[in-house]
Amino acid sequence: MRLARLRELAESLDTDAVVITSAMNVFYYTKLPRPYGSVILYRRGDGATLYVPGLDYWRAKDSVSDAEIIPYSRYGLEAVEEEAPRVVRSLTEELVKQVEGLKLVGIDAVTPLANQVIKKIEGRVGYLDASKAILEQRKIKAPDEVATMEEALRITEEALKHAMSQLEPGMQEYEFAAILEEGMRARGADWYAFETIVAAGPNGAYPHAVPTAREIVAGEPVIVDMGAIYGGYCADMTRTIYVGKPPREVREVVEAVAKAAEEAEDVAGPGVTAEEVDRAAREYLRRAGLGKYFIHSTGHGVGVEVHEPPRIAPGVKEELRPGMVFTIEPGVYLHGRFGVRIEDMVLVTESGAKVLNRIPKILEQ
Amino acid sequence: MRLARLRELAESLDTDAVVITSAMNVFYYTKLPRPYGSVILYRRGDGATLYVPGLDYWRAKDSVSDAEIIPYSRYGLEAVEEEAPRVVRSLTEELVKQVEGLKLVGIDAVTPLANQVIKKIEGRVGYLDASKAILEQRKIKAPDEVATMEEALRITEEALKHAMSQLEPGMQEYEFAAILEEGMRARGADWYAFETIVAAGPNGAYPHAVPTAREIVAGEPVIVDMGAIYGGYCADMTRTIYVGKPPREVREVVEAVAKAAEEAEDVAGPGVTAEEVDRAAREYLRRAGLGKYFIHSTGHGVGVEVHEPPRIAPGVKEELRPGMVFTIEPGVYLHGRFGVRIEDMVLVTESGAKVLNRIPKILEQ
Repeated sequence: MRLARLRELAESLDTDAVVITSAMNVFYYTKLPRPYGSVILYRRGDGATLYVPGLDYWRAKDSVSDAEIIPYSRYGLEAVEEEAPRVVRSLTEELVKQVEGLKLVGIDAVTPLANQVIKKIEGRVGYLDASKAILEQRKIKAPDEVATMEEALRITEEALKHAMSQLEPGMQEYEFAAILEEGMRARGADWYAFETIVAAGPNGAYPHAVPTAREIVAGEPVIVDMGAIYGGYCADMTRTIYVGKPPREVREVVEAVAKAAEEAEDVAGPGVTAEEVDRAAREYLRRAGLGKYFIHSTGHGVGVEVHEPPRIAPGVKEELRPGMVFTIEPGVYLHGRFGVRIEDMVLVTESGAKVLNRIPKILEQ
Repeated sequence: MRLARLRELAESLDTDAVVITSAMNVFYYTKLPRPYGSVILYRRGDGATLYVPGLDYWRAKDSVSDAEIIPYSRYGLEAVEEEAPRVVRSLTEELVKQVEGLKLVGIDAVTPLANQVIKKIEGRVGYLDASKAILEQRKIKAPDEVATMEEALRITEEALKHAMSQLEPGMQEYEFAAILEEGMRARGADWYAFETIVAAGPNGAYPHAVPTAREIVAGEPVIVDMGAIYGGYCADMTRTIYVGKPPREVREVVEAVAKAAEEAEDVAGPGVTAEEVDRAAREYLRRAGLGKYFIHSTGHGVGVEVHEPPRIAPGVKEELRPGMVFTIEPGVYLHGRFGVRIEDMVLVTESGAKVLNRIPKILEQ
C-alpha cells in the first residue's frame, strides 16, 4: 500500500477518513492489478482496510501488505470465510457503519457504490468529493512512476521497431496490429493502454480509426498509435510510417507535424501553461498552411490511465509542474486522402521538459 | 442506425425523446465502433441526431446513415466547420435546448454528461433514467447479433487451438498470452473482450489472476480465459489445459468442473430462473466435495459488453428468455495449489439452450 499518499490525501482534504472506490484509484494506492470492485477505507491515525470481492481475497491477501483485507460477497463463500477474520455481506452498509460518527469523509464520488454510500450518510456524516484531489495527486509522478512509464515506453518502441522490420505492402492493417501487440506482450507488457490504431492511406484521416482488412499500399502513410501497460502504467506513442518511398507531399506533411511536435516540446516546462504548449504546435501548423487540419487537442496526461489530467489544449490555463507526464501529439487529417500524427511522451522537469521517447519522430523502414 | 430499436425504446418508456450518452449504448444503436464522447438524440416522429466530437466527424459521416451528424468541440475546427452543416460548442447546452418544451425524455443517466443535462432540465422537462430499459433491450439478442457473437467465439476457439499446438513446458504465462492474442487478431478480431488470463499452477487459484513471468510446468493445470471482440460483440471462453499428463487429482477436478458446467447447461432454458442454473452447477460441485471452492457466480450475460445482464448467480429470480446469451463458468480454486475453470457461452432458445462453443470442455494437447 502507498499509505503515505493516502495520509497526504486525507491531510490535504482535512478529512478524518477517505474512501476510494474507483478501480484506477484503488490501483494507484494499492498496486493491486485490476482491483475491480475493491474499495479502500483509510482512517487517519488508524491505517487502511481493503475490501475485496470474495473471489479476490487470496490474490489481495498474498500481494498487498500494510492493510487489513476483508472480503465481501452477496452470498456465502465457505472456503473464504474459513480463512478470513471477517466477511462482509453488504459493502455499502459496511462503509456506512465504518464512517458513522466521523466529522468529515472524503469519497471519490465517481462510482455507483460511492453514490450509494453518500446517499446513506447525507445529513449525518459530512463528506466531500475527493476525486479531484486524487487526480491532482496522480498528476505529479514520483521518480519510480516515471521509471515504470519509461519502461512501458521502451516496450512500445521496441515492439514498433520489430514490427516495422516485418512490414510489407499487401499486409492488412489488423495483421500489422497483431504483430505490434504480440511484440509488446512478448517484451513483458501487462496489457495494452488502449486499442491499437493502424490506419493506412485514407483511413489515417480518421483520428480514431479502427484497424480494418485494408491492405497497406507502398508509399502511403500509415498511422500507428500504440501503447503498452507495464507495472500498471501506460505508454502512448504514435508514429506515421510507410512502406517504401512516400510521395513528396506526404513527406512534407510528416516533416511539418514532426516540427510542430518539436516546437511544443521546446516550449514545455515548469510554469508554462498547457495552452501555451498547445499553441506552439498549432501555430507551427498554421504557418505551414495545415492549421485547419489539426482537429484535436495537442495532448493529455498519462499515468495509470492513458488519458488523465492535464489536458494540453486551447484555453487550458493550468501551469505545468515538475513530475507531470503528458503526450504531445499534433496531427493533420486530410479527409479522403491521408492522415499524419506523431506523438511523444514528455516529462516536465525542474528546468524544462524531457522527451521520454528514444526513437526518432520520423522512422524510415 | 438501428432506428427501429430507438423507436421501440422510446415507445416502451413512453417518452417523447431519448438521449443516449454511454459509449456502449451509442455503439449498440449506431454500430459506430468506439464512439467515445458521441451522443444520440432520438425524437419520436423526427428521427435521430448523432453528436460526435469534432475529430470523429468524418468517421461518423462516412459510416453512419439514417442520422444527422453534428460535430461538437470546445474550440474551433475550421476544416470540420467548412463541411458540417452545423457545429455545436457546448454539447450540454445543445441537448438542453433540444429537449426544452418536451413532456418526457428518457436519458441513460450513467455518464457525467447525462447527469449535467439532468441537472439543467430538472423541474422544467420531465425525465426518466432509460438505462435499465436499454439493458433490457440489449439482453435479448437478434439473430444477426447471435451470428456475430458466434463468429467472435470461433475466432477465440481457433486462436486457442493454434496456441495449444505451440505450448511447451518452460513457456511463460505472458508469452502464451501473446500467442493467444496474436492468434485472435490474425483471425480478424477487432480487439479483446477483456484482459487475457493465463494462470498456471498456484496462480490459477486466483480467479482474477494476471499473467506473470511464471514458467509453465509439465502436468500443472493452466487456466486460459480469453475472448475476441468481433463486429463489436464479445466472446468469453475459459479452458483449463495442461502440457503433458496431469496428476490424477487435477484430472478429477477438471472432470468435476466440466460436469458442473454441463449440468447447468442442461438446466438452462426459457422460463427457468437464473438462480436455478447457478444452483445446478453449485450443487454438482457440492456433491463432488468441491462446493466450498467455487467462490464466484456461475455466469453473466455477454453482448457489446463482456459483462452485462443477466447475472447467473444465487438469489437471481429472473426468468431466462429466448435470445439471452450468457456464460456458464463454474470453477474450483485451491489456494496455494491450483485452480480450474471451464466457461462456455450459451444461447437460450425457444425450447432450451444451445451451447455456442464447438471445442470440447476438456482439451488434450
